[in-house]
Amino acid sequence: MPLHAPRRAALRAELVARDLDALLVTDLVNVRYLTGFTGSNAALLVAADGEERSVFCTDGRYVEQSAVEVPDLERVVERACDLALAARAGKDGYQRVGFESQHVTVDGLDALEQAVDGLVRASGLVEVLRAVKDEAEVEALRMACAAADRALVDLIEHGGLRVGRTEREVARELESRMLDHGAAGPAFESIVAAGANSAIPHHRPTDAVFKLGDFVKLDFGALVDGYHSDMTRTLVLGRAADWQRDLYDLVARAQAAGRAALTPGADVRAVDAASRQVVAAAGHGPRFPHGLGHGVGLRIHEAPALSKSGEGTLSAGMAVTVEPGVYLSGKGGVRIEDTLVVRESAPELLTLTTKELVVV
Amino acid sequence: MPLHAPRRAALRAELVARDLDALLVTDLVNVRYLTGFTGSNAALLVAADGEERSVFCTDGRYVEQSAVEVPDLERVVERACDLALAARAGKDGYQRVGFESQHVTVDGLDALEQAVDGLVRASGLVEVLRAVKDEAEVEALRMACAAADRALVDLIEHGGLRVGRTEREVARELESRMLDHGAAGPAFESIVAAGANSAIPHHRPTDAVFKLGDFVKLDFGALVDGYHSDMTRTLVLGRAADWQRDLYDLVARAQAAGRAALTPGADVRAVDAASRQVVAAAGHGPRFPHGLGHGVGLRIHEAPALSKSGEGTLSAGMAVTVEPGVYLSGKGGVRIEDTLVVRESAPELLTLTTKELVVV
Repeated sequence: MPLHAPRRAALRAELVARDLDALLVTDLVNVRYLTGFTGSNAALLVAADGEERSVFCTDGRYVEQSAVEVPDLERVVERACDLALAARAGKDGYQRVGFESQHVTVDGLDALEQAVDGLVRASGLVEVLRAVKDEAEVEALRMACAAADRALVDLIEHGGLRVGRTEREVARELESRMLDHGAAGPAFESIVAAGANSAIPHHRPTDAVFKLGDFVKLDFGALVDGYHSDMTRTLVLGRAADWQRDLYDLVARAQAAGRAALTPGADVRAVDAASRQVVAAAGHGPRFPHGLGHGVGLRIHEAPALSKSGEGTLSAGMAVTVEPGVYLSGKGGVRIEDTLVVRESAPELLTLTTKELVVV
Repeated sequence: MPLHAPRRAALRAELVARDLDALLVTDLVNVRYLTGFTGSNAALLVAADGEERSVFCTDGRYVEQSAVEVPDLERVVERACDLALAARAGKDGYQRVGFESQHVTVDGLDALEQAVDGLVRASGLVEVLRAVKDEAEVEALRMACAAADRALVDLIEHGGLRVGRTEREVARELESRMLDHGAAGPAFESIVAAGANSAIPHHRPTDAVFKLGDFVKLDFGALVDGYHSDMTRTLVLGRAADWQRDLYDLVARAQAAGRAALTPGADVRAVDAASRQVVAAAGHGPRFPHGLGHGVGLRIHEAPALSKSGEGTLSAGMAVTVEPGVYLSGKGGVRIEDTLVVRESAPELLTLTTKELVVV
């Protein structure tokens, strides 16, 4: 697994910098990132002083699977992996053992403290690494974005968006078509919102029927190899009114401004502001009630947050969404969203569907 | 919402018994159980001294939805609901405020302690209530079980289980057919395992092709109104060999013994043992490497655990699975699983598909 050993090496450098002897990784997504293991129970003890002292743990159900997925680490088979590896850290004589204090619960820490001395809070070490994607991760995101793009093209070409259909039917078809294009499943609960429902930012599909002239907002993504894509398109059924074209044009300009601000070194709040000010200048500031975007990868929401309350700056290799929206309550709303990768030159667009207003 | 107020009243009685002034409920599933709220961000402060002092919190995305789903509680709109309600508990003068120490993280507790004094660990209070289902919950489970039963009947009647198909195709069809019967989605990642793969307890569907004489093990369930069903059936393609009939018969007897042991007051370990001894008597004890079953409800796995390491006794109204399995490595395995409700008389079977050996 040439992918995962370099990630563990990067983590070891962090441990040395923090004077930790080891890190007990108990968050399953972090374990997957560091080992490639895809089962539902595992933990990992990363030793600062070398790969050969690191230990992976899973339970009896995953003996065969973990032999294939994690061939390159010593393995312990136990049900309570966190406790087994904490005890192991004690046995191996580690003095300072980091634990993931943003994931371990208060009761969980009690149990760990019974198993080992010298536990030290170590929050977000793996998450910081995960924020910058390597090329294998970008490739998985590219495939996840492609599955969503293709599903939408199929849906439109087969007449799936037409007057008389319901939000629920369309959500189901869209998810089914993503599976046709290699998705393991939807990346999250798909949003299909027609007419006035498009003004609800997080609308859950209902039996509401598509009507002539409706906005139809589709916010969806595909899951491929554990990686999540996230895209939103807003279309119009039959014929677009002037107010719809104006609103769409505004959001498209705000989205372009947000994308243009994606450069290494940019403050995440400045990226949010670059897009938000386009909306505010049009007098619609209060109708854009959410952040501009978020990091995306092994989780649908991860660092960095592109928002007013976000922290930090962008780096090349970060994968983010850019998704401004303007919502006119009772009338309709528009959101346009791409998944992109921050690059030294221009950001790389992974979502390839047009952002022109499509009237179907 | 006549469903939820009685649940909060039952919780208040627990708070009084533990001398707590309030409980800060931050686990989203527990919030749903107590309020009916189905969004992705919320918390609830339950005051021991009365419904009218209890406060619900969600963020701006869910203003309209929560007005419909939670009409009967005071509402606060904030992004960081846990902190907002902790501060509120301080403002309301509570001296002893319970928090869910099995859900709150170590970092999360730090933040709560900044917001309020007098935090007290209170683990599992809502989970204990949730283990015993009320009739509205049983009805949701019944619908979830029916969606799965019907999907399997459809699959078989439409020739979906036949030589030449792949595990992945069948998993997808089964999940699609559950949606036809009212499921919001699958209750968990469906298991379809053919031939030797049926000997892997938790097998993820692959492109393995069904062959004549294969065991096909299907472990799947439906999600309806937030409630999860869970069933397993093992069929044979074309013609069953003697060893397959023998193995099937053994597991069916073990499963019947487990169901017969489901009586109020029974120790969960005794229930597990009642089924396990049937397998052990046949010399296959080591080939039944997992627990007998688990509680099921708003989560696919919840209390009680029917296993060697489980604790406690059964009560009427608990919903559980009974799912012994025997796995012959490299050859094939059988698991048979129902979802049932413990009743004063005999347990109520919610999974209605036959447990005779079906040869398709």
